Amino acid sequence: MKRRTFLKGAGVGVAAAGALHAPAVIARPRRFRFEMVTSWPAALDTLYGTAQYFARRIEEMTDGDLQIRTYPAGAQVGPLEVYDAVSNGAFECCHTAPYYFIGKSPAHGFYTAIPFGMTLEEQNAWMLAGDGQALWDELNAKDDLVAFPGGNTGPQTGGWFNREINTPADLRGLRMRFPGHGGRVMAKAGVSIQLLPGGEVFTAMERGALDAAEWVGPYDDRILGMHRVARYYYLPSWAEASAMLGFYFNKDAYDRLPADIQHQIRACALESNAWMAAQYAARNPEALAELIAGGTEVRYFPNEVLAAFERGAQEVHEEDLRDRDYARIHENWSAFMERSRDWNRNTTYRFQRHLFGEV
Amino acid sequence: MKRRTFLKGAGVGVAAAGALHAPAVIARPRRFRFEMVTSWPAALDTLYGTAQYFARRIEEMTDGDLQIRTYPAGAQVGPLEVYDAVSNGAFECCHTAPYYFIGKSPAHGFYTAIPFGMTLEEQNAWMLAGDGQALWDELNAKDDLVAFPGGNTGPQTGGWFNREINTPADLRGLRMRFPGHGGRVMAKAGVSIQLLPGGEVFTAMERGALDAAEWVGPYDDRILGMHRVARYYYLPSWAEASAMLGFYFNKDAYDRLPADIQHQIRACALESNAWMAAQYAARNPEALAELIAGGTEVRYFPNEVLAAFERGAQEVHEEDLRDRDYARIHENWSAFMERSRDWNRNTTYRFQRHLFGEV
Repeated sequence: MKRRTFLKGAGVGVAAAGALHAPAVIARPRRFRFEMVTSWPAALDTLYGTAQYFARRIEEMTDGDLQIRTYPAGAQVGPLEVYDAVSNGAFECCHTAPYYFIGKSPAHGFYTAIPFGMTLEEQNAWMLAGDGQALWDELNAKDDLVAFPGGNTGPQTGGWFNREINTPADLRGLRMRFPGHGGRVMAKAGVSIQLLPGGEVFTAMERGALDAAEWVGPYDDRILGMHRVARYYYLPSWAEASAMLGFYFNKDAYDRLPADIQHQIRACALESNAWMAAQYAARNPEALAELIAGGTEVRYFPNEVLAAFERGAQEVHEEDLRDRDYARIHENWSAFMERSRDWNRNTTYRFQRHLFGEV
Repeated sequence: MKRRTFLKGAGVGVAAAGALHAPAVIARPRRFRFEMVTSWPAALDTLYGTAQYFARRIEEMTDGDLQIRTYPAGAQVGPLEVYDAVSNGAFECCHTAPYYFIGKSPAHGFYTAIPFGMTLEEQNAWMLAGDGQALWDELNAKDDLVAFPGGNTGPQTGGWFNREINTPADLRGLRMRFPGHGGRVMAKAGVSIQLLPGGEVFTAMERGALDAAEWVGPYDDRILGMHRVARYYYLPSWAEASAMLGFYFNKDAYDRLPADIQHQIRACALESNAWMAAQYAARNPEALAELIAGGTEVRYFPNEVLAAFERGAQEVHEEDLRDRDYARIHENWSAFMERSRDWNRNTTYRFQRHLFGEV
């Protein structure tokens, strides 16, 4: 083995000389102050907490060269206005759920959740080792945006209801908060859908403007107080087997950053992406146990109801195929997912069947 | 700011400058060259590729302030000698599987895999949102090491065999490559265990010195040529529901780095951790399909055999409880896993049961 005594010994004290000798070259500016608007109330400390985590970590990594001030929903712009506010350059960056913006193109749904879609592992694999990121880059470039994975809630829950859902008929006429393509599927089943931001869901339930609501999962839902306004908690989510968020940057603001800081942003985003998923995985189990201890009743959708959702998801998908970005990304996404599912069925799923005494 | 601008100009050949201009202040050096030894042959481009990925990314992130040269197994030290070589300061860092070093303490197994242990999501959650990292830090500090998650293979496979394993009796007398605690469990079942590095497994099988072998999964196993020397491929792994690797740094070398580079190393490690898991998730499904098309026969361990492994795992666990680090970490690890499993059973697992038509 080689020894590196030279390197070991040579390091100390090299850097100081230039303080006395001004460099002859013009350096690019190295200090940047960005503002990050978000779609989250500050009380949701996993969602808003991930924006704060990103800001703290990028400041540590850049030794303060990039400082990001985060804002909760509504402090600067409304929670569903953050995408446009970054696209048009009013703010340098935002943290949000891409599927809030399926009105622009249904293709944004692939970057949060598609009904009966990818699990956390599959989504990460498609983003990092498949074509997910490259296809997203093309989609976002149309709005002068550069985006990175910004956390994942992992598996969500099916929502809070004040009546049991035993047949598809029980869904008809419900007024429910449900975002993304999943909400459109619910609408096919006769549910009246409203896309309310997280900060407004509890109040709408409490004053009777909503009969049911889907937010994230036990940890967040308990913070919002959902268990105080609804009795039945349906598990798991068929619409959001996982749900990815995004850090979006205005392209001009991003392009002004030195390359090394751009590289650090990607690493910081992927660290934050893993951090959020870990937080939910650690906190949801305890929160669910506490909800149940407090009187929440867990229910599972019957197969007949799930079959109705599957038919609705197929209808929504066929409508969306008219969108060229959706059609192109869907082809890639679904091929990747099909291969992954076979593998997962043969490995983790089969291992768990044994653990759970079902094989 | 000053520091960085200056350093850009000063970077190349800085070591010489100090000799000409006595520094007025003592600044810390900004340019570092580290060497990373690994346990992987270069042909395994997901394992060795993750070391290379880390090196490329940290160089991009630090704008060249930290450059890391990677070495395949054996180029500088043997694949199983890397831990000691970094602990004693011969090299600044290594990339390896922590469970290769259970001879030092069985507690290192928690940082790769424990039989019937954590899935990828659970391992990441324990490391990032549980006490996994803090407990690892305490363990590694005893050997003057600082370590970070360094990739995860995701679910592994159960191994290659030249005969079918229909009862526990079929295991007796087999000579098999099987690392970590899983290998000790196999030994309880009457298997003669050898811990060979990846680069030597194929040859040992080919020349008849081994009857069976476990490596990683379809993608890597195909590169090693396992399908050419064994007929039956058992799925899934009961010993490695996931398998984490580690980036280890010599503590003195790490402590000499500026804080911002230390922060970047953590982010880069966690990005690399996600990158490797994604690579395997993307590549294993295709590789398995190709192996099957080429004649490999997939088998599943019967419940009777799995039950024998579970008994063996319990025996190994009881032996290891004599180790204080193992006992302390196990208490934390198992409590975290139990809570996670209930949650996973209610969410992702139940979602997949529906997808696979089993509910």
